[in-house]
Order: sequence, then structure tokens, then C-alpha cells
Amino acid sequence: MKTTTIRHRVPFFETDAMGIVHHANYVRYLEIARVAWMDEHDRPYKVYVAEGYHFSTTRVEFDYKRSAAFDDLVDVTTWLDWVRGASLAMGYELKRDDDVIGVGLTEHALVDHDGRLCRLPPEHRTRLTGLSVHGARKARGRVGRTG
Amino acid sequence: MKTTTIRHRVPFFETDAMGIVHHANYVRYLEIARVAWMDEHDRPYKVYVAEGYHFSTTRVEFDYKRSAAFDDLVDVTTWLDWVRGASLAMGYELKRDDDVIGVGLTEHALVDHDGRLCRLPPEHRTRLTGLSVHGARKARGRVGRTG
Amino acid sequence: MKTTTIRHRVPFFETDAMGIVHHANYVRYLEIARVAWMDEHDRPYKVYVAEGYHFSTTRVEFDYKRSAAFDDLVDVTTWLDWVRGASLAMGYELKRDDDVIGVGLTEHALVDHDGRLCRLPPEHRTRLTGLSVHGARKARGRVGRTG
Amino acid sequence: MKTTTIRHRVPFFETDAMGIVHHANYVRYLEIARVAWMDEHDRPYKVYVAEGYHFSTTRVEFDYKRSAAFDDLVDVTTWLDWVRGASLAMGYELKRDDDVIGVGLTEHALVDHDGRLCRLPPEHRTRLTGLSVHGARKARGRVGRTG
Repeated sequence: MKTTTIRHRVPFFETDAMGIVHHANYVRYLEIARVAWMDEHDRPYKVYVAEGYHFSTTRVEFDYKRSAAFDDLVDVTTWLDWVRGASLAMGYELKRDDDVIGVGLTEHALVDHDGRLCRLPPEHRTRLTGLSVHGARKARGRVGRTG
Repeated sequence: MKTTTIRHRVPFFETDAMGIVHHANYVRYLEIARVAWMDEHDRPYKVYVAEGYHFSTTRVEFDYKRSAAFDDLVDVTTWLDWVRGASLAMGYELKRDDDVIGVGLTEHALVDHDGRLCRLPPEHRTRLTGLSVHGARKARGRVGRTG
Repeated sequence: MKTTTIRHRVPFFETDAMGIVHHANYVRYLEIARVAWMDEHDRPYKVYVAEGYHFSTTRVEFDYKRSAAFDDLVDVTTWLDWVRGASLAMGYELKRDDDVIGVGLTEHALVDHDGRLCRLPPEHRTRLTGLSVHGARKARGRVGRTG
Repeated sequence: MKTTTIRHRVPFFETDAMGIVHHANYVRYLEIARVAWMDEHDRPYKVYVAEGYHFSTTRVEFDYKRSAAFDDLVDVTTWLDWVRGASLAMGYELKRDDDVIGVGLTEHALVDHDGRLCRLPPEHRTRLTGLSVHGARKARGRVGRTG
């Protein structure tokens, strides 16, 4: 599984009057992590942008397990969960030391600069599928069945 | 169904380089709407806070259907979906005119000012259940069975 | 003096762990107010954008006098302070009831969609100068001198 | 001069529909930088907080010289400009490679957890003055006069 982990030090401006990170900020942490994943495993997101594409977010799910506070170090681990013809999903786990703070999933559709849905060009789809958890599982499965 | 609708005019600072509202901002719209729902149907959220309580967000789900842009008027409708012993869920629908922009769900646990989980005091639970979609359904069902 | 006042109800997500509105949010309040000023006294900002212009912010000054908290109603009053060949300045006063929470100033340069500085087209400059505090003062001054 | 420089990689969510970092975000960059300055040269900000203090922001000034875009690396350099009996000021310079993006100043008052102004305890004032640009200049001046 191709994962990337970024470490985010909680700035004061992300806290709220409960004294903890406001829950809406976690959606932003996910974005920082998936951009880092692309850098490490695929292509920098700005290369997609330069080619006229965006991965528009179509779904966010997040389960909050524990809170984080100012100056905490939050490690956000992300991976490519699945890839379809015009969309993909990323999974996330957030930890502070060994404590899981939250888990999340985001789905994204490929769009052009006018926001129109696009199918993933075949070379991108093949490459991304090879990097994905379920693509990799399916591949291993097939190997197994032929064995 | 007790719903509240707030109208949000998209400020420029909520847009991103795709020219549309950045997806993380919608989680904030949900908060504005549920605070307004409490004002209209339950008690102002700050009364809960003054009594030492917070409804900590434990889950967010959001499906993005269409994008919104600077100066758009987004109507966020919210309702109380269900109530349990120490938690509740709110549902949301976001529209621009007749177009659905997105739908969402948030779950919240009652916590004290130190962030410890609390059971809903019985009077709050009863009142909130009466305001909820599923509480109301169950109540109607019972009435039906006794009829 | 052509002023516009918007009322902003402080959402929870704008508070920080000091229990008050995080200071960076006020810069956003100023933007909401000046867009409303344009609607009321000049032209909607999105008309400028549709014509290929933006008023890029080149300077922000803000003095914080008092804090605001969750659910406070903050009234932001704004006016056009001065207009020059390619720039203008807006002034701001923020109040909660009769208490001044802060005062601010922003400066803006007219730019095209590629971010290049533009001179204000003469019709805009004349109209905006007529709406500005110092333009108005100068005009009154002239009237005075001719009297 | 005791400076600290943090490198901030611009996330997508900080951009706006002009395609550049929204100007309000820079105020947040300043906060990240001054917290890092305290870590490096003074005491971690959370130690002040644990002792019941906050440095409440009382003034922000920022001049925007150039824009930054998604994925740019922005280096924020900060220093302690001056220290008075109950307040201090930090200066900032933001660069992308050799280009100055902006310069800023923030002023802060020491407050307790209820937001009341406090005088700087003498040991903090002396230490901070020694770290400040103007404190240091004055000290050098004195040395000069004795020479």
C-alpha cells in the first residue's frame, strides 16, 4: 500500500472556543495530505492543473475519534483507495503519537477547468489503479487465480 | 418536520483557484445552519454552552452535487434527524434556487467543558426527540398502533 | 459620507481557544462589508469581475479594541476613503451595540485577470471619487473656495 | 537580530478565485511564524498559555507586494521589533525565493485568561527586551557611549 504521511503542527488559528481544533479544519488536513501523496507516488497536483484538470471533491466523510489542541503534532496518513473511470477515492487516518484522532474518506471526480466531468485518460487510469489499494488487491487476486 | 433554512451569500474569501467555493467551507455552512435551527426550534446553542455543554461533532458526511461561486445565494436547510442517549444527528440540503448543491449529515455527542461525553439529560432528550424526524416518526407509529 | 453597514453574527468556527473571534477573521469581515458597499453605492463587485477586473488588496491595517465572542452581532460600517489613479482605500469601523470593537483600513489596486496593474478607467475613477470621503471633501472645499 | 524563518507551502484551500493566496491568509502565516520564533528564541507559546497568559493581537499591518499561488514555497521571517510594559511588536518579511511578497507588523498585549490586560512580569520583559531589535539597539548604543 502506497501511503504518505504528513505531520501537521496545529496552529492557534485552527482552534475554537472549545479549546480544540475546529472540526471543519480536518477537511483541509486531508487536502494537504493527498497533495503530498501525489507528489510522492503519482505526479504533483499542479501538473494536473497545468494540463487543464482538477480532481473536484464530490464526497467527504470524516469520523472524529479524539480532539487535537494547539501545538499538537497530527500525523495524517493517506492512500489511494479505489479508481474508477472518472473518479477516485482517498482514505485517511489521523494520529497523534499512537492515538487515532480520526479517519476519513474523500471522493474526487476529474473535471476540466470549466468544471465539466472528464473520463480519466487511460494512461492516468492505469497508473493510478496500480497505485490504489483495491487496484492492487484485484491484481494480486488475479495472480492468485492463475496460480 | 421542523426545518430551518438560512441563506448564505458566498463571500469572495470562500472561493478557491477553481473559481468555486472550496469544498471545506461547506462544513462551516452546516454549523451556521444548525445553530440557527437551535435558535428557531430548540434553545440557542449558547444556552447549552452557558450550562457547560457542547455538541461535539463526531462525524461529517457531505456529497457535493454542484459547485457554488462568488456572490451566489446558497440556502441551507437543516433538520434534526435522530436522537440517542448521548448523541444526535442533523441532516442538511443545500440549494441555489432549485438546484441541489449538496446534501450532508453531521453527528454530535454531548460533552462537558472538559470534553467528556455526557448522557443527554432526560428533559433535553425528550424535547429533542420530539423535534427529530425519526422521533416524530416513531411517535406517530405508536399512536397508530394504539388507534 | 456614503457608508454601508453589514451585521455579522459570529459563527462558532470563527472563535479560537481564547474563547473569542480569532483576529485573522476580521480581515474577512472587511471584505464582506466592502462588497456590500459596492452593491449599495457603486456596482456589484461581480460586475467588475465580469469585465475582467479585480481590486487586489495591497494593504491591510486593523486595530483591535475589544474582542467579540460566539453569537455576538458585529456591525461593520465601511466607506470609500480615497481614490487615486489606480488604487483606492476603504475605511471600517466595527461595533457591537455601542462598543467599538475595531477600526481598519484596506488599500486596493485595480488589476486585470492576469494580476497586472491597471489605471482606473476615467468613468470609474470619476464616479468612485464622487463617492469617496476625500473626493467629497475636496469637492466641498472647492465649492467653499468659490463661495 | 534574532530572526526565525518558517517555510510555508501554499495549500490549495488558501487560494481564491483570483488564482492566488487570499489576502486574509497572510495574517495566519504571521501567527505561525511568531509561534516558531518563540520556540526558537524565547519560550514555547503554550508555556505562556499554561501560565495563564495570552499575547492578544491588538494591531495588524500588512503590505502586499506580490501574490503567491498554489504550491509556492513562502518563507516567512519574523523578529521581535519592540517591547513595552504590557505589549510588544513583531515584524515580518515574506519571500518566495528572492522576491519579497509582503511585509507586516503585529502588536500584541499581554492578557490573562479572562482577557484582562497585564503588565509583563519583569523577568519576561527583561528577557524579551534583550531579544528585540530596539532593545538590542539601545543596548549597543550604551556600549558605544561607554567606548
